Amino acid sequence: MAKNHQTSGMQPCRPLADSDSLNFLPYIENGWFREVIEVSQDQSFCLRVKRVLYHEKSQFQDILVFESAQYGNVLVLDGILQCTERAEFAYQEVLAHVPLTCHPNPKRVLVIGGGDGGVLREIAKHDAVEEVVLCELDEAVIRVSRKYLPTMAVGLDHPKVTVHVGDGFEFMTHNAASFDVIITDSNDAVGPAAVLYQRQYYQLLHSALTKDGIMCSLADSIWSNEPLVRRVLRYLHAEYPSVDLITTYTPEYITGQLCFVIASKSPGINFATPQRPIVAEDSSEVNGETTACKYYSPDTHRTCFTHPPFLRQIISECLSGTGEATEDDGA
Amino acid sequence: MAKNHQTSGMQPCRPLADSDSLNFLPYIENGWFREVIEVSQDQSFCLRVKRVLYHEKSQFQDILVFESAQYGNVLVLDGILQCTERAEFAYQEVLAHVPLTCHPNPKRVLVIGGGDGGVLREIAKHDAVEEVVLCELDEAVIRVSRKYLPTMAVGLDHPKVTVHVGDGFEFMTHNAASFDVIITDSNDAVGPAAVLYQRQYYQLLHSALTKDGIMCSLADSIWSNEPLVRRVLRYLHAEYPSVDLITTYTPEYITGQLCFVIASKSPGINFATPQRPIVAEDSSEVNGETTACKYYSPDTHRTCFTHPPFLRQIISECLSGTGEATEDDGA
Repeated sequence: MAKNHQTSGMQPCRPLADSDSLNFLPYIENGWFREVIEVSQDQSFCLRVKRVLYHEKSQFQDILVFESAQYGNVLVLDGILQCTERAEFAYQEVLAHVPLTCHPNPKRVLVIGGGDGGVLREIAKHDAVEEVVLCELDEAVIRVSRKYLPTMAVGLDHPKVTVHVGDGFEFMTHNAASFDVIITDSNDAVGPAAVLYQRQYYQLLHSALTKDGIMCSLADSIWSNEPLVRRVLRYLHAEYPSVDLITTYTPEYITGQLCFVIASKSPGINFATPQRPIVAEDSSEVNGETTACKYYSPDTHRTCFTHPPFLRQIISECLSGTGEATEDDGA
Repeated sequence: MAKNHQTSGMQPCRPLADSDSLNFLPYIENGWFREVIEVSQDQSFCLRVKRVLYHEKSQFQDILVFESAQYGNVLVLDGILQCTERAEFAYQEVLAHVPLTCHPNPKRVLVIGGGDGGVLREIAKHDAVEEVVLCELDEAVIRVSRKYLPTMAVGLDHPKVTVHVGDGFEFMTHNAASFDVIITDSNDAVGPAAVLYQRQYYQLLHSALTKDGIMCSLADSIWSNEPLVRRVLRYLHAEYPSVDLITTYTPEYITGQLCFVIASKSPGINFATPQRPIVAEDSSEVNGETTACKYYSPDTHRTCFTHPPFLRQIISECLSGTGEATEDDGA
């Protein structure tokens, strides 16, 4: 299943001339960006475009950066919104801090995808973390983010961070039992990211984790893609003794909600309770809460696992012994 | 400030003929409904339309019902989505059960707006409640909901419920100190609902509540209209000794998030902790949770008040002694 894509050489980012039309892309019309996701074709989400800043067809995907009216600069891959300068903190803080505070001592962390650098910026805050490796398939995402998303891309240059451009499957195949936490910061299950939602991927994550390692990955919205959430939970239930679902809320995505899946190779983990603070001793911490976070706190950590009854029922069904997953289960 | 609108006689609902174009309304284009809210003009939300079921310009507003591809039937007032059959439970359950479980003995409840009947359906579940009065300005909303939203409109016919068609301002002026809980289930702060976000309205609610009464009203999304959330919190802080903000999450609305404000005439109320279950003795209740709820539980109640640090900061600023409100404050 592993792919071995080599990226082309680093390309300079050329901003578009002011005279370029806003309407040359299929997902921009009359000055609006409109996201229509394949799996939720009957609902869509629009942001007003002030200015298209950059467009490129990289080796792997269509890359767009535009300046929005209310959300700052916006990164779009294959027509799907990835992050906005205004609201990215809600996504990055939960995806980084929930799995890391659930691990007793996360020294080595791997991020698959995440070329914008935002989740790296948050991971680097943890004083327990000694090394973070980013494995991003597409060098163009890194290059474009450095230029147009500097408040996220700052994470790429943190001294703890090593950036590796290449395929996550191949990287993990050569790095067994190497990472305490592996975070997958990917696009939706389309284009080059589709393989990151297959059972083989979760098996490979398992092999690359240390013995008490924790993985955390995107699993779409329960409102727009319940079948995918169910399928991923069942895959994980077949591979890991501890599995749970995180919900987080952000205005950047269709339905305003995203799920992440979290799993540990250790049994009996209660993910809803953080095991340690982000920084053990820091004058900026009050009552175990890092004041530098805008979304994450130990309290919001707990709410990520406090689900309404309809969603608890779904999780319970998927994590019960009867929920054996097959490769095309629910697909 | 009070208005005294008399409604026209009951009109029959005539469904549109199949041959009617989907594109005769400004907010339907190429088979999609598109909501662009005045206060958040730079973001919008679209649902695919299977079929327009009904359209009317009532005395007060433009009323549309369409059948959507994924969300069942959808009610739209003045171009703004009100509720969908698929997802309405998240909104109705929080708006009804959070204020009612915070009151020690809510015998008489008033709903301003809410002509679809959904919040009535939830209020009627409470065994403590003896009487619910609905005061809806526009008879057309009631009539249309009975025909096209029967799973919500069932609340209109509950034996505890009295339906009053008329103006909420006038009704409350004639019913001082009459209600234990008053819930405002309104449109956004546009059209006929705009007056329900003014300081005089919150003062009138105060006068219509019993001495330990609780009010709960919509206050938009923190992401799309932070100035309105701030203004309403400051108004309430000037009138009520106990005030807090509820957040709830639903895919039906722009940004996927809504705020409600809640306030009590009693000091020192901790709204985050429910005071009583929905039904005191019921075999369907396990551990204080009514199994008939899909979104609400005592745990989700608490999460409605567990805010990320950036929002806690906003609430704290508005509810501090320095946050005196003036009529046009932040407007």
